[in-house]
Parts: sequence; C-alpha cells; structure tokens
Amino acid sequence: MKRPGVWKMLMVAVCVALLSGLQAQDLPGQVSIILLGATGDLARKYLWQGLFHLYLEEVGKGHHFRFHGTALTSTEQGQEAIAKVLESLSCPGDMASGHCAELKAQFQQLSEYRRLKTPEDYLALSKDIEAQVEHEGLRETGRIFYLSVPPFAYVDIARNINSSCRPGPGAWLRVVLEKPFGHDLHSAQQLAAELGSFFREEEMYRVDHYLGKQVVAQILPFRDQNRAALDGLWNRHHVERVEIVMKETLDAEGRTSFYEEYGVIRDVLQNHLTEVLTLVAMELPVNTSSPEAVLQHKLQAFQALRGLQRHSAVLGQYQAYSGQVRRELQKPDNFHSLTPTFAGILVHIDNLRWEGVPFILMSGKALDERVSYVRILFKNQAFCVQSEKHWVAAQSRCLPRQIIFYIGHGELDSPAVLVSRNLFRPALPSASWKEVEGQPGLRLFGLPLSDYYAYSPVREQDAYSLLISHIFHCRKDSFVTTENLLASWVFWTPLLDSLAHEVPRFYPGGAENGQLLDFEFSGSHLSFSQLLPEQLVPGPDSAPLPSDFQVLTAKYRDSPLISAWPEELIARLAGDIEAAAVRAVRRFGEFHLALSGGSSPVALFQQLAAGHYSFPWAHTHLWLVDERCVPLWDPESNFQGLQTHLLQHVRVPHYNVHPMPVHRRQRLCAEEDQGAQAYAEEISALVTNGSFDLVLLGMGTDGHTASLFPQSPAGLDGEQLVVLTTSPSSPHRRMSLSLPLINRARKVAVLVMGRMKREIAMLVSRVGHEPKKWPISGVLPDSGQLVWYMDYDAFLG
Amino acid sequence: MKRPGVWKMLMVAVCVALLSGLQAQDLPGQVSIILLGATGDLARKYLWQGLFHLYLEEVGKGHHFRFHGTALTSTEQGQEAIAKVLESLSCPGDMASGHCAELKAQFQQLSEYRRLKTPEDYLALSKDIEAQVEHEGLRETGRIFYLSVPPFAYVDIARNINSSCRPGPGAWLRVVLEKPFGHDLHSAQQLAAELGSFFREEEMYRVDHYLGKQVVAQILPFRDQNRAALDGLWNRHHVERVEIVMKETLDAEGRTSFYEEYGVIRDVLQNHLTEVLTLVAMELPVNTSSPEAVLQHKLQAFQALRGLQRHSAVLGQYQAYSGQVRRELQKPDNFHSLTPTFAGILVHIDNLRWEGVPFILMSGKALDERVSYVRILFKNQAFCVQSEKHWVAAQSRCLPRQIIFYIGHGELDSPAVLVSRNLFRPALPSASWKEVEGQPGLRLFGLPLSDYYAYSPVREQDAYSLLISHIFHCRKDSFVTTENLLASWVFWTPLLDSLAHEVPRFYPGGAENGQLLDFEFSGSHLSFSQLLPEQLVPGPDSAPLPSDFQVLTAKYRDSPLISAWPEELIARLAGDIEAAAVRAVRRFGEFHLALSGGSSPVALFQQLAAGHYSFPWAHTHLWLVDERCVPLWDPESNFQGLQTHLLQHVRVPHYNVHPMPVHRRQRLCAEEDQGAQAYAEEISALVTNGSFDLVLLGMGTDGHTASLFPQSPAGLDGEQLVVLTTSPSSPHRRMSLSLPLINRARKVAVLVMGRMKREIAMLVSRVGHEPKKWPISGVLPDSGQLVWYMDYDAFLG
Repeated sequence: MKRPGVWKMLMVAVCVALLSGLQAQDLPGQVSIILLGATGDLARKYLWQGLFHLYLEEVGKGHHFRFHGTALTSTEQGQEAIAKVLESLSCPGDMASGHCAELKAQFQQLSEYRRLKTPEDYLALSKDIEAQVEHEGLRETGRIFYLSVPPFAYVDIARNINSSCRPGPGAWLRVVLEKPFGHDLHSAQQLAAELGSFFREEEMYRVDHYLGKQVVAQILPFRDQNRAALDGLWNRHHVERVEIVMKETLDAEGRTSFYEEYGVIRDVLQNHLTEVLTLVAMELPVNTSSPEAVLQHKLQAFQALRGLQRHSAVLGQYQAYSGQVRRELQKPDNFHSLTPTFAGILVHIDNLRWEGVPFILMSGKALDERVSYVRILFKNQAFCVQSEKHWVAAQSRCLPRQIIFYIGHGELDSPAVLVSRNLFRPALPSASWKEVEGQPGLRLFGLPLSDYYAYSPVREQDAYSLLISHIFHCRKDSFVTTENLLASWVFWTPLLDSLAHEVPRFYPGGAENGQLLDFEFSGSHLSFSQLLPEQLVPGPDSAPLPSDFQVLTAKYRDSPLISAWPEELIARLAGDIEAAAVRAVRRFGEFHLALSGGSSPVALFQQLAAGHYSFPWAHTHLWLVDERCVPLWDPESNFQGLQTHLLQHVRVPHYNVHPMPVHRRQRLCAEEDQGAQAYAEEISALVTNGSFDLVLLGMGTDGHTASLFPQSPAGLDGEQLVVLTTSPSSPHRRMSLSLPLINRARKVAVLVMGRMKREIAMLVSRVGHEPKKWPISGVLPDSGQLVWYMDYDAFLG
Repeated sequence: MKRPGVWKMLMVAVCVALLSGLQAQDLPGQVSIILLGATGDLARKYLWQGLFHLYLEEVGKGHHFRFHGTALTSTEQGQEAIAKVLESLSCPGDMASGHCAELKAQFQQLSEYRRLKTPEDYLALSKDIEAQVEHEGLRETGRIFYLSVPPFAYVDIARNINSSCRPGPGAWLRVVLEKPFGHDLHSAQQLAAELGSFFREEEMYRVDHYLGKQVVAQILPFRDQNRAALDGLWNRHHVERVEIVMKETLDAEGRTSFYEEYGVIRDVLQNHLTEVLTLVAMELPVNTSSPEAVLQHKLQAFQALRGLQRHSAVLGQYQAYSGQVRRELQKPDNFHSLTPTFAGILVHIDNLRWEGVPFILMSGKALDERVSYVRILFKNQAFCVQSEKHWVAAQSRCLPRQIIFYIGHGELDSPAVLVSRNLFRPALPSASWKEVEGQPGLRLFGLPLSDYYAYSPVREQDAYSLLISHIFHCRKDSFVTTENLLASWVFWTPLLDSLAHEVPRFYPGGAENGQLLDFEFSGSHLSFSQLLPEQLVPGPDSAPLPSDFQVLTAKYRDSPLISAWPEELIARLAGDIEAAAVRAVRRFGEFHLALSGGSSPVALFQQLAAGHYSFPWAHTHLWLVDERCVPLWDPESNFQGLQTHLLQHVRVPHYNVHPMPVHRRQRLCAEEDQGAQAYAEEISALVTNGSFDLVLLGMGTDGHTASLFPQSPAGLDGEQLVVLTTSPSSPHRRMSLSLPLINRARKVAVLVMGRMKREIAMLVSRVGHEPKKWPISGVLPDSGQLVWYMDYDAFLG
C-alpha cells in the first residue's frame, strides 16, 4: 500500500495547479481535451455530450478550451462523423434556444477531428496545441486524454502520450481510461504496471460510470449529511440485509464477442456493484470530501471482505445465449457456452460493524425488468401490541423500514433516494434534490411510494457529464484508483477461478423466469431455492453427487474406517466428536480435545463452529497436537487456524485453550526455554493420566502424523510427552505430542482427505508397525479406540 | 438439584401402582378424588366438569371411583351447591342423550359433599373411605386431593392430609395445587419447603392450566414429530424472533384485591408464558415422553436464560385500574397503584442455539383483542429475483415463514397449529388433529389463512379436563415441579424487585391504545416506541433525566475531571478509550490496555462490546490491573468478568489477552511460584518501557485502588512492577500492578461511580500525596495524563 502522506501531497499539488488557473494570472489558461475513439459508440452517445456540458458549465469562468476528437480513421471520414455528432448536441431544457445555438456554434468552433495513430501524430498534436496556445496569447493549464478505445490499445496510446504528448512544465496531464481494466488479478496487475510506467497515479482517471450516477454519487454525502440518524442504525445490530442489484431486460445479442470473454461477474459485479458495496460498507471518513480518506476507507472495507467460495455464488444463463454465441462467433452446433449472464453473490464483511449482515449482489440479463438499486433493509426490532388491522402505515415500527438508493429505471423510472417514513426524515441538499411527486398505486419493496420520504434530482444528469466535470475538477474520489482496482480483483479472482467450469442454470428470459432464479443462503452458502430435476447440458464435473452415496464403514489396518464424500465425512466426524464431548462432560465434567492443524481440520472447525448447539464448549479444553515454531500470530501457526475458524465462533473459556509454548521469552522453540517440558507439565496437571479424550490426527503424504516425521527418532518412543522435532519442509522446527502420549488417548481419530493422499493411504494399509519409516503406523492406542476417517478421494481414488 | 436416578425410580414405582389396578388382581381397585373448595368458582366452572370427563373416559376400564366435594361451608349449603353443579354437567357432543343421562346419574351417585375443616374431619373422611372400600369388597388404589383453595390455606390442609388422611400402604397419594405458588423466590421457597415437609415431590401436582391447553401440550410432540424438518431450522441461524403472547380484553375489575398484589408478571408471565418459553427453547430430549428428561432439559433452558434487567421490561396500566382499586379496596382518593396490567419483556438465551434471538413475552389486560399464541418467525434468507408482483404466495421464499401455536381465541377463535406453506408440511397425529377449514378473507400475522398448513384439534378439550386426566395417568410432565417453579422465580424475582417502584405507562384500554404500547429493543434494552411528553402520575423516582444534563468537565486533584450521569459517563469513557486505542495503533501498531475488575467496569465492558465498530481489537493487548487469588474460572475472578462481558463479544487474539498468573501449578498465589515476577516479565517483554497506553483504575470506599490497600506497604513504592498484596476483605490475597508501574502509563483513567463513593471522593479531593493512607492519592503519572471519570452520584451526591 502506498503511503497516503506522499499521495496527498501530490494530489494537493495537482489541484492547486488547476485552481491557480482560476486565479488572477499573467495569462489566461487553456485546457485541451483529447477524446480518443471520438467516433465510437460511447463517444457519440455520451462523451461529446459530456464535453459540451462541461463547456456550458465552465465557459466564462476564466478557462479556454479546445476539444480534439481523434481516431484511427481518415481525416475526412472522421470530420464527417464528428460534425454529425456535434450537430446533435443538446442544451439543458431550461436554456433559451438562441443562447443554446450560440454556445453550440462556439463549441463546434473549438472542436476538431484529427487522426491519431503514429508517434509522429502525437508529437504533431502536442506542437499544434503549443503553437495555438502561444498564438492566442494563452498559457497551457493542462491536457485531458480520454481513452474511449478497446483495452488492447491502451499501452500503445499511453506510451505515445507519455513520450510525445505531455504538456510542458506547469501544466497538468490527466488520462481517462474506460473499463475493462483486465480480466483477472494477473492481467489487471500487468495492465496497471504498464500504465504505471507511463503515468503517475494522480494522472490516471479510471472511469466506472456507476460512480457518475447521481444516486450512487449521493451515497457518501447522504451518509455524511444524515450522520445523526444513521450513526446508531448503520451496523449489524440494525441492518437486516443489503441488496445491491442491477437487472437488465436486454440480452447480450450483438455483443457476445465481448460478453463471452467477460460474463456478468466481470461485466457488472467486479466493478459497478463492488464500487457501490464499498460506498455502503466503508467506515465513513470524518471528511467525506477528501479523496484520500475515502480511498483509505474503501481499501479497509476490501480488507474486511470475507473471501468468496464457490458456494458464495449462483449462476444462470438465458437459454438463447449459446445460440447467439454460435451465430455471432461462428461456433459449431455442439458448442455450449458456460458464460454466466446472471449471478447472485453473497458477501460477508468480517468486521464489528457488519459481521453477520448479508450483502446480496445480483445482476443479470434477460430478466423481467430493468432496474438498479441498493436496498438497506433494517431489522424489525419492534413489537406492535395491537392487531395488524390497527397499524398506521407511516408510523408503525413493525412495517418494513428501509433506505433505497434507487439508481434508475424500474417502476419509478427515475433516480431517487427513498427512506421509509417510519425511519427518519432524511436531509438532502435542497438545491439539487426535490421531493418525488406521488404516483398513486405505485408500490416499491413492499410499501406504497407514499410511505417513503422520496427525493429525486432536481435536474437529471447523465453519468458521463458528471464524471467529465469531476475529471476537470480533480474529484479523484469519483474514479477507481489502482489500489482500489487491484483490491477488487483480489476479491473476485478466486471466485472466478473456482467457477470457471461451473454449469449455469438455464432460464427462459423475461417474466417467464418465474421463481427459477430465486436463491437463498444458509451461513455463507448460497443456492437456488428450487431444485431442478436436471440440467440441460451435462457439465464437465459430472461426478456423482455426494448424496448419491451413503457413508461407508469398513476396516483399515484392523481399525474401524469411516468413508464418505468430504461433506458427509466432516459432518460425521464432527458429530462423533460432539458425542464424545457430551459423554466425557457427563462422566468427568470436562473434555480434553487435542487438535491438529492443516487444511482438512479447517472444514471440521467450520462445521463445529456453525452448528452443534449442544457441544459443551464451556467444559472443553483445547490442546494442540503439534505446532510450527513460529509466533502464534503467524498465519502459518496451527493455532492461528484454530483461532480463526473455531475459537472466534464458540465460547471456550480463555483458560481452557492451551496453545503450544513455541514462543517463550520472545524466542522460537529454544531448548533452554523448556517449552516442551512446560506443555508436558500442563498436560500432566490437567489431563488425568495424560489420557486425552480425543486426539485428532492427520497423515502426510510421507506417512508422518502430528509433527513426527520418518527417519527422525524424536517422539516415537520413550518417556517424553512433548518433543521438539524437525520437519523436512519449512518451517523445519516443530513441537509435537509424542507417539506414546498420543497412544494414551481414549480415542484417536485420523482424518485423511484428498486425492493427494491416495498413494500413502494405499501403502499404509499394507505396512506393519514401522513408526520409524511411517510414523502413522505407530498410532495404536494402548487401551483407547482408533478410527480412520477417509474421504472417497483418499480411499477409493 | 435432585439426582434424577432416584426420582425416576420413584416415578416408576408410583406408576406401576396405578397400572396394577388395571391388571387382574384379587380385588378391583378404587380411586377417591377429594376436591377441596368444591363450591368455588374454579370448581364450578371447570373442575367438576373435568372430573365428570375423567369418569366418562375411565368408567368400565376396571376402576371404581368416588368423588368427595369438600369446603368449609355447612353440609346443607354445600350439598345444595354441589347438586346444582352436578346437574349442569354436560357430555361430549357425540354421546347419545340417554346414555349421557345414565352416566350422569351414576356420577351423581358417586359424588358427595362434606365439610372438611378440622383434623377430625380429615380423619373421618379417611375412615369413611376405608370403610366404604371394604364394604364394597374393593381395594384402595389411591387418593387425589385437588386443592382449589386460596394459597394461605395450603399449609394447614397439607398438614391435615399428611397426618390424618393418607391412604394405607399400597395405595398412592396425589395432591393437586393451584397457583399462585408464592409471590417471589423467597415466599415460593418457603411454601415449597413447607409442602415438602408433608409430601414427597412425586406426590405433588402443581397445575399451570396453560400446560393443559391442547396447543401448548402439542408443542413438544410437534417438535418431536417434525424433527427432520425442524432440526436445521430451530436455531439462531434461522429464527428471527419468538413471540409468546397472551392478550386479554377484560380488565381486573372485581379481582383487584388479588391483582393488586400480583400484577401481570406474577399473574401470567412468571408461570404461563415462562412454561411456554421453556417448551419452545429447551433442547429436545431424545425421548420427549420421559417426564424426567423433559424436566432436566427445561432446567437447562432456565440455566441459559440471560438475567433480566430493569430495561428488559416495559410496563403499562390501564387508566381505570387505580379507580377500581380505590373502589374495591377502599383506598383514599389520592391513591395511585403502580401495579402493572401490561408488560412486554425481552428475553435472551445465552446458548449456541438461541444466542441473539429475541424472545418477546407480552401480556396485558384491557387490550384490543383476546388472543394467545406463540409465533416463531423465521429469517428471510432468500432473494427473489422477479419483481414482487410476480411472487406466488405459497411458494415464494421471500414471504414470511412462520410457525404459530395458536393457543386460542383471536380471529381464528379456535386452537390451532399453523405452519407457512413455504416452510414445510407438518406432521400432526391425524387421529386428534384435522385441517382447519378455509375462512375467506381471514389474515393472520401478515398472511391469508390459506397460506398456512393449519390444523386444529378434532375435538376441543378444556385444559382442566386434560390435566385431570393427566393427573390420573401420572403424566407428571404436564405439571410444574418444585425445581422448575423455583428456577422460574430465580429468573423473575430480580426483575420484579427492580421494577417495584417503576411507574407504568397509562393506556386507555381497547383499540384506543393505538400505538401507545408498541415497544422495541436494541440489544437487551427494551423501550416504548413512542415518547410520551409526560406521565400522568409523577413516580417516586422523579429525578431529572440523564439527558437533562450535559457532561461536565472540571478539575479534581489538579487533574481533569469528567462528570455526568452514569450512561453518559460510560459512553464518554468508552469513546475516550477507543480514541486512545486508534491513536496508539496508528503510531505504534498496538495498544496496551490494563483493566480493573469490579462492577463499574462491567458497564464499560458492555458498552465497548456493543458498539465501537472501529476499535482496533486485533491490535489490542488486554492486561489486568489486579486480580483476586482465585482460579480464573471462579465467578469472583476479575478475569471472569472481563471474559463474560467483553472478551466473548469482540475479537481479541488469544495471545493478546494476559490474565494474571494467580493460579500456577494448581496453587493460588504461592510466593514460590513467582506469578508476580512472571507477569512483570511478560509486561517488560511486550510493553515498551512498561508504559501501558491506558490504565483503568477504580477507587474503593477506603481509598484503595488496584489491589493496593491502605496501611499495607506492598506495591506503593520500590522496584517491583507486580506485587502480592493483602485485602481487608475476602478473598484476602491479591495480585496487583504496583503504583510505580501504574504511574509509568501514558494515561490513567479513574472511574468512580455511585453514592457509596461520595464520602471518599470528598475526602480524597482534599488530601495530599499520602499513598500509605489513601493509595489512590499516589496515582500521579510520571509523564502521562490522569483523568477522573465520576458520575454525579459520586461527585455531587
């Protein structure tokens, strides 16, 4: 992360340069705006209009402007196209038509088309600007390059701007970039590094046009201006859920060459909905108009996002999509796309403000309506004593209470901010927001419109006009910084990877989708509400479902073996541990459980943390089977995994948790600090006969268990209860319970999961008692029970 | 708690005795039922009918019956009254009237009235029964005494039954008692002890007639028979809230002499609603028909109830009540009752199943409708993609999902079990439950009746008939055991005490109550939703409200003093600590906070646990200022308070928590275990220069602070950082930070609260630096800041 201090200084410097243009100076300043891709779709539809809007706003405020539309096409063709666009520009509705015509003519005068292709073209542009400025007796204030071009062209253009078209000293450079900014973390990093070699961070303006939508741009100011009302409400104690939604009725027809590569998550969720998410979730800076503070708080919000899993998402694809792809991209008849056109995602934020509050992100094409909104639904924490029929809508605390940032379209067909009347009367700047007029019969989110305080912009403004104005005014907080962009990719890329081969659910499109796409969550797990009897296309993972199999019980090394698919296996093991705990607490008042680290136990910890309501945690002692010689707060520490996935979710008393003392006197596993002896003493003092009630072990691909490794004698026999050992892999120093101590346990469970373990599982099934070669073969409780828990991957391969 | 094993054996013995009556025996058995208070209201309305019902059910199954109605009135008057009642008895609707008349005549034949007052009367009754049994060639099976009398009569009657009217060997005795069973824990214990000196536990049947209501009696069987569907749902992950409600339209007119002493909490909540609460909340025993298992699980549920605070309740009183009391009890005109006739209570259950789920208990007189129900509302964990107008009621997962045990009355006007159709189709025994017929237009809890699977009893049965049958069949789980009763009083008594002088909110009664009684919760805190400008009657605590005052800042002992009402003071202190934490973490990456134990810090811990979303807990180290030499799990341990009120609610890493080592090698503060030295070393290793960022102290009425006591030199000066000290009060041995170490802190906050501290606060304000007399006077940070936080009670008195 960059040091904010430095960045702030640069920001200030740049913005002073702009402001100084407005101050009394020797010469009046000129800003040149170069629109690359000036004849493209986006430019014709929005950008020229945005530039004209900027001109209307700023003309007569001391700045001179020049607009250069550029593209790769020939000068004549380009000029013709541009002339057509300029002719179609419109003024705000409240401007007199004569005045409009006059300003439009001025703007056309100041705008030119030129071809911009070779380094020489850039150099020529730069010289022309300089000559023109000098000729008119002006001073150059700055240049804005707006890149409305496909991303593959970015690097070349950037190189040319940097080498041949930078303004002279004292004038600023701003380069505006349009998404996509990469396809995943790796490509985004690459692109960012390349751009970073040409431009400084403060010179780049990455557009996410959602940030220019009036309602989205109002989220932070709204939170700021309504602090008093929101302070107590904007947290997990009061928010029931947050929905961030963008529904489209259109499909991808005509755009499949782009869409097939991106899909709905990259197209909408990774950028637009994520930006909105951070605006809602971030801690509110004291000064919301400081872009630096906003960025820092956004980045903190990213830090707190819980990583997405494959089961954090549901995916859909409208049925006509694959056909469209086949037609447009000339694919064979048997081609079926896996690209999702619909996604529902469940996001959790692991901080004290939002812990447990579901953030639901949803977007899709070919849905029943076009609408986008953020809905913050508050918990109903009231009890209304009268029977429902007596409730008074706008007063009853038992009716839904919500805040809706209605971004646009939908039944209201206008951007708006809605606050339930039973919540509070919001403050919005009255110069730019007005109360929405009643629309009898209109219901939104379960309430008639009249039950909301509803405000819409006095003048609707399109996103690009707003953003172009913000570029000019150096409002960096309306743009996506590199750090912000990469943080978003860090968040989304693992999910995209894990979903790469997922078969989406097919939906007919429009209102016919019925309830087919409805989804629901349980914990972090998202799934469609309705079960489908079959998918239309069999996916690449057409393995049998876990539920097709029963849990299998058999023998392994003469001990009971329980085998199943991973989920069933973990559920069974968790159930067995709980049963052992209940039994032990009933008999002895306490339960001593020794746990191993690693990845397989994590699933077990999560299972134990999520359910198992009767687990006697208050009477359970947790011990470690082994530990790496790293500080306990090191991510590699076994204890850290236990803390993150189990301890934070259950109520084990502090003094019943026994981490291994690998870090005494600020040293790691120093013999003279006698950590192993101390742990042995602690065990002897608290665990009757040193017999743990249950020891959970794993098995390494080399046959090691706990931290007892082949060809290394420590801990395999003898009197020592706890030993220091050496691992073949880093970190090499370990502390471990000894085999004799493990074998004193009442029950030992060995958990073995994954294909990687198949070979060793096979091998160990055949070897005898050879702990020096395969320490796991030495696990044989003196009088306790040994049970093997292996998933089918490890056991059947 | 009694050992369940013994109790179970007794139960079995008793029930075998009953069953043996049905076996082939030498002589047929007779059961005598003695109804005391046989001419009273309850007896005339329900009990005689219940006895007749029992007779109809059991006649011809091998038992003979005799019914003795008794009272204190003369024989003629009694006989006359009884004859009238017996004449009015009715048979079930499906019985032929001839058959009915025949059985009624038999029942009248078997029933007699007698006066029962003196010990001689009891002896005579006993002799008469024996004589009659012998005369008819029968064997006595058992006697049921049903006490439908005021509670003050219990003990005398119990003594007489025990001494003069027990059946002979081989026959059982059952004594049925009606509430109230005491007025608070103390009186309930006393009554229980007295009754316990006459009867064995298994001889007593305490009636809570709610347990005889068909729907209430169905709660456990429903949970049992629908285990598969409910297993995943019946927990905090899925339940949004539970409402347990009994609303009455009647008021207390004519009953104020009783009501004035009891009020709504004792009359309804402590018994009926609490019984229902335990049925809903308890862990489901494997065998729900084992009364022993049910009792044990109920008691566990009581254990898990979070203690009620004054702010767990809202109270109301209908406006006519005080007038009625004045009239009926001849009170003077200026008499105003504080007895609540309405109460809303928020209950939390601190176990893994229910943590965080609000259980709302509500009852009141003079409300808008008569109805009682339990409503379990499930969380909406679905997202419905289509716009609302496309939702299909009985399928959409986005519409309310709930289970309602509709106990009776209300718009449905019949007991019923309702399960939303979008939840699951419930299993109910088809012999006794049938589907409710549609009632077009009827909506219940936000849904049309047709959106529920709705079942009502095939034959409605009144609670007393059911309970009398259960007494006869020895179904002890339908009755309130002594342990259960006392557990309930343990739960309710502290609340009743703390509300004793609370002024209830006045309400007009009926539908006019409007939203006046609506209430809402935030955390554990319950309050009415609407603020009232004034109360009609000023209460005894007419102290100014906290909000009437600002926080006051001044000087005390030349250091800053912050003074306010307790809530504001704690909020201010918590805010200051958070600010210090944020500052320290920003500068140094960590925050070292040393905390004192005691009651004032508890409020602080709760405040820090509930809000303060930006508190950098992950980088905070928690130290103890002092500790009592008790094991850490002892309720007296300072650490235990810290753990319960703070640690369990925030995420401080395990290794950042530093309890004092007062319990090493299983010994308490043994000098040779060097706990104080070990703590000093830990501090030196982790806290730069031994300077805590913040030390929170208190001040004792003797001027002690930390565990540094007057006239005891340890820790007042010298080199030692941590010392063992001796307290004048038990437990005497303590461990404490020393004064020199405390004075190294960057900031020391002294929190002083309550009237008890007024004198010492006054005194200490005048003394100089005399730590040997008043250790608190030695607190003077070397270079850090000292701030005093005193509430107005301590500071202004």
